[in-house]
Amino acid sequence: MSTETSTREVRDEFYGRLKEQELAPLWEVLKGLLPSEPKSKAGIHRWRYQDVRPLLMESGRLLTAEEAERRVLVLENPAFRGMSRATSTMYAGIQLILPGETAPAHRHTPSALRFILEGEGAFTAVGGERTTMRRGDFVITPSWAWHDHGAEGDTPCAWLDGLDLPLVQFFEAGFNEHYNDERQSISRPEGDSAARYGSGMLPLKPESRYGLTTPIFNYPWERTREALAGAAAGGAPDPHEAVSLRYANPLDGGWAMPTMSAWMMHVPAGFETARMRSTDGIVMCLAEGALTAEIGDQTIDLDESDVAIAPGWTWRRFRAAKDSFLFCFSDRVAQEKLGLWREEKG
Amino acid sequence: MSTETSTREVRDEFYGRLKEQELAPLWEVLKGLLPSEPKSKAGIHRWRYQDVRPLLMESGRLLTAEEAERRVLVLENPAFRGMSRATSTMYAGIQLILPGETAPAHRHTPSALRFILEGEGAFTAVGGERTTMRRGDFVITPSWAWHDHGAEGDTPCAWLDGLDLPLVQFFEAGFNEHYNDERQSISRPEGDSAARYGSGMLPLKPESRYGLTTPIFNYPWERTREALAGAAAGGAPDPHEAVSLRYANPLDGGWAMPTMSAWMMHVPAGFETARMRSTDGIVMCLAEGALTAEIGDQTIDLDESDVAIAPGWTWRRFRAAKDSFLFCFSDRVAQEKLGLWREEKG
Amino acid sequence: MSTETSTREVRDEFYGRLKEQELAPLWEVLKGLLPSEPKSKAGIHRWRYQDVRPLLMESGRLLTAEEAERRVLVLENPAFRGMSRATSTMYAGIQLILPGETAPAHRHTPSALRFILEGEGAFTAVGGERTTMRRGDFVITPSWAWHDHGAEGDTPCAWLDGLDLPLVQFFEAGFNEHYNDERQSISRPEGDSAARYGSGMLPLKPESRYGLTTPIFNYPWERTREALAGAAAGGAPDPHEAVSLRYANPLDGGWAMPTMSAWMMHVPAGFETARMRSTDGIVMCLAEGALTAEIGDQTIDLDESDVAIAPGWTWRRFRAAKDSFLFCFSDRVAQEKLGLWREEKG
Amino acid sequence: MSTETSTREVRDEFYGRLKEQELAPLWEVLKGLLPSEPKSKAGIHRWRYQDVRPLLMESGRLLTAEEAERRVLVLENPAFRGMSRATSTMYAGIQLILPGETAPAHRHTPSALRFILEGEGAFTAVGGERTTMRRGDFVITPSWAWHDHGAEGDTPCAWLDGLDLPLVQFFEAGFNEHYNDERQSISRPEGDSAARYGSGMLPLKPESRYGLTTPIFNYPWERTREALAGAAAGGAPDPHEAVSLRYANPLDGGWAMPTMSAWMMHVPAGFETARMRSTDGIVMCLAEGALTAEIGDQTIDLDESDVAIAPGWTWRRFRAAKDSFLFCFSDRVAQEKLGLWREEKG
Repeated sequence: MSTETSTREVRDEFYGRLKEQELAPLWEVLKGLLPSEPKSKAGIHRWRYQDVRPLLMESGRLLTAEEAERRVLVLENPAFRGMSRATSTMYAGIQLILPGETAPAHRHTPSALRFILEGEGAFTAVGGERTTMRRGDFVITPSWAWHDHGAEGDTPCAWLDGLDLPLVQFFEAGFNEHYNDERQSISRPEGDSAARYGSGMLPLKPESRYGLTTPIFNYPWERTREALAGAAAGGAPDPHEAVSLRYANPLDGGWAMPTMSAWMMHVPAGFETARMRSTDGIVMCLAEGALTAEIGDQTIDLDESDVAIAPGWTWRRFRAAKDSFLFCFSDRVAQEKLGLWREEKG
Repeated sequence: MSTETSTREVRDEFYGRLKEQELAPLWEVLKGLLPSEPKSKAGIHRWRYQDVRPLLMESGRLLTAEEAERRVLVLENPAFRGMSRATSTMYAGIQLILPGETAPAHRHTPSALRFILEGEGAFTAVGGERTTMRRGDFVITPSWAWHDHGAEGDTPCAWLDGLDLPLVQFFEAGFNEHYNDERQSISRPEGDSAARYGSGMLPLKPESRYGLTTPIFNYPWERTREALAGAAAGGAPDPHEAVSLRYANPLDGGWAMPTMSAWMMHVPAGFETARMRSTDGIVMCLAEGALTAEIGDQTIDLDESDVAIAPGWTWRRFRAAKDSFLFCFSDRVAQEKLGLWREEKG
Repeated sequence: MSTETSTREVRDEFYGRLKEQELAPLWEVLKGLLPSEPKSKAGIHRWRYQDVRPLLMESGRLLTAEEAERRVLVLENPAFRGMSRATSTMYAGIQLILPGETAPAHRHTPSALRFILEGEGAFTAVGGERTTMRRGDFVITPSWAWHDHGAEGDTPCAWLDGLDLPLVQFFEAGFNEHYNDERQSISRPEGDSAARYGSGMLPLKPESRYGLTTPIFNYPWERTREALAGAAAGGAPDPHEAVSLRYANPLDGGWAMPTMSAWMMHVPAGFETARMRSTDGIVMCLAEGALTAEIGDQTIDLDESDVAIAPGWTWRRFRAAKDSFLFCFSDRVAQEKLGLWREEKG
Repeated sequence: MSTETSTREVRDEFYGRLKEQELAPLWEVLKGLLPSEPKSKAGIHRWRYQDVRPLLMESGRLLTAEEAERRVLVLENPAFRGMSRATSTMYAGIQLILPGETAPAHRHTPSALRFILEGEGAFTAVGGERTTMRRGDFVITPSWAWHDHGAEGDTPCAWLDGLDLPLVQFFEAGFNEHYNDERQSISRPEGDSAARYGSGMLPLKPESRYGLTTPIFNYPWERTREALAGAAAGGAPDPHEAVSLRYANPLDGGWAMPTMSAWMMHVPAGFETARMRSTDGIVMCLAEGALTAEIGDQTIDLDESDVAIAPGWTWRRFRAAKDSFLFCFSDRVAQEKLGLWREEKG
């Protein structure tokens, strides 16, 4: 018997005894635990809205809002099938609500963001206040805030949902509660939070309505677009970020939510960004324009409302055929708080 | 000789010897140093704009902008004559600029705020960017930022100036520098700071352009008024504060400036606030409406553009004949940071 | 064919088409994603040091430090076999270093903490400074800081290792680098960081040596024990926490590390805590005394150096036969920053 | 009549009418209000403890503690006679308490610091806890915290008092209250705050006992000296600061008090610092050693317990004949918070 075999056998016998004690030899797995740099398990992927939309409408015919509670097609990353994940840490889906329907009131630990894709007359209610949702609006339902949705117009309404579900599951810290009625009672007029927190002014003694989350829960498209156009007028686009602004919490200047970063990148027609990468995996949705994304070794064309995934630590760059506005979200804020976030610019 | 006299003499002789050593007996002055509660030296006062305006215009005829550098009538609190103080810590004045004039570029440690009273076509330039000033706008020139003013319309332009000059003098920390030209060079289009910082969104990595001061340097009246009207719609006015919003720094949610707090109180027609007092002395200017202020033992009517002083720790309350908007500033932010600010609500 | 079957079939066919597009029906999994309260997957478990120690020493005979890089027996939660996890988010292990050995210098994104169990003469070097490790010391190797260990005494040295490895893996944000030598070069005398940051005083302009991590990297047992005894003298123990102090970052008063909370609970002899639970799963190690822990439905006796797991959102309480000191760590700080942490006191 | 005279007369007449309206022409005083750099009104001065001490003891014979409430010789800056100021913003004095005496309990808005010069057996009580004061200790009585002093040993006890009295007066924000007894009741054992906050550990949920002020109220000399000696061993002294550590608030890493910065500079024997200046005026007291200070155009020798003033924006440098430890305090923290503090290194 060779020495090597013998060593192997001795060790295996030892490892067997370790196992009985719920112990394991670190040295056998150390290399796998500490790679020299991140290799995201997530796949690069794009969902064309023109492909998703018919299925979404079909789901509308297939089951009622009551049956579904939330009628959503989950955008499952091919690498995470059956796990309801768009990236390692983020959930994404496309939600549909039909005229006259209600997505009933509940609250939960996971935070949710909405990026509105189509429809007129839908609303989200949060903490006793309603907001009307229009294409391009960025709407937040904060962690543990009561929320419900309804559609009171004549058209189906659809939006991109982003949640930190995988993250909350990983931390095993999720709570969920149903409201005692379909819709929560409304105690403030529409626009109250925008008036109090969204004008550059703030209450004398601002108390956070929603913990670490911004008290503004609708950042309207019209204003976002105008801000980006204004910023674009102020100088040449950044080589890597083009013209990017993030949705912010006016109470502290941080990101709008404690677990999910959301921002909008405006790439002017003809501009091409230099490649960069960051440790956060990004869910992107084209709000307006026509954009070509190079992500890792793939080239992906994005039309309006298409969604794509750029996995963490994967090179990315963008080229705009028309003036383009790309909505993005990721776990960047969480990584920053935990001291994990890094970027590299090529 | 009585014992008392003798004690007195012994002490006086001792105090004399102390004095030679630059020493003083605390016990002789302790009571004066530690009053049981603040008694502001500042007087209650009101300046009617209808009285000030003719003198302001006369000053415009009397001397050129070049001669004046800044053509300002200082609002001197009667208790602080010759000291250029509106309250113990704050300076206030009314500035005039005539069509075609320039108030030349300089920068200084004291922070300045402007509340625009009248005129069309005047601008302030700060840090390479211009902003047009309109009635009711709140404009900031941050500590140590280059700034100049000009009037390019057809009307005289006047505004209320607020500075922390007495505070900077007290700390003996003031610097001042003249620009090498009348007007600073402009490197960013008008609206750049509003687009980047004033939309509820922020740059990805916000760097403060002006230290502890907000990067937004014009909070336009239209927007302020709309925010206050919106907030008023959201519920009954606060018994003491009516409907008050403060000008905020979007980078941290704090006050817009590190040494001066500024806010706007909206008192709806017919509403009367309950009395309150706070340790900060307040400079007030009526932006719109008609308001009666009770300050200490005085009752003061305020018409548009009138300015009044509410000394620190003096009871105040307000009654509105019409929908009224009262611009206020004080050293509250400084007192808060230093752990000194207190209020009492009656 | 029943309607139910038919509906099932229709839906299954639809789900099949969804799958082709990397879509999934949320309504089929929603309940599982949003439980009403957390149910930790982690098992309750205890490792007796008297059982682990012989295996640890055997590992010392079985392979050299060079072979192992780190000679550690991983404490694998029975619920996470093969995953190197003590809880959902935390790694724990027992490390051994023998006289004359070196655990070679490297650095990595995961943060590590050590709680010293036995031995004399071992050191950890961090950022160019060495610290001698003694029983009960709490030693930190911050994220991305070079570190190596060595034993220069006559006895084997063992310690509990805690790392945020599962968390860094989940975020796919881990980097790792080997130093170009066995041991890093030493540029500061032992005690430098303790002198500059650990005395209640701080440098005039403190710069963080290690990002979000405390600049102190050894909190000595003698001092910890004295602080807890002092705090115990100051009043009755808290009903739930007994006498607990956390290792703190002197630069901001927060937890010592950005991803792992560590604290010491002192339960005086005869004291029994009331039950409580929190969303963080806790790794506990008895530093001194004899303690009975009730965790969920289990009663566990802890002798010195024994390690146990209290899964998240599981009721726990403690009873001390002797004056006891329980070292604890968890992901609480991460949950707090992300707005996820909750506790309930019975 | 010359044009100039005429202009003068016209203006004077105008200024007279302004005065009637409590208005003043800014242009006549602007230059004085905005100097190009600070010129402190404070004088450079030194008090020799050998000169002050006999007078201090004489005051002890002259009046009882009851008569004095606080038996203190105020160190009045020659430039601020009768104003109880050591610098523009800071008060300093030397306090004496004789065996068996009590300085009765009160509380006030001004914050106070003590630097102990001599005596055994004196104590300060703050917030229900006593601390014994020994030579070199840095003791704090936070704003609005009940405090009293007593001497229970056999020797007179003396210390340097520093207060932010001028600052609180300037802001007109001072309150004062007497306790209903000579001495406050004691609710915590000596050392409680040091155990809970001063060990590098902190309570799980630290609540500030004293607002913005550190919860530690005695930083003992032994520990301060050891920390400085340890820091000195770690590398060459800084050219300008030698080896300086500041007293810190463990809850946030900031200065120990919200209005007064205090630090200790250790100048090793033979070391000479390069000149520097800063906008804060500094009160200095030599704790140990023998030091020569160059302040502006003066050279001042400092023996133990001597006190000196370095006015703001005045060049200073130091040369140590022996290992020296210089206690310093100023309004630096206030200036920093207000965005006013600047330094220049020569």
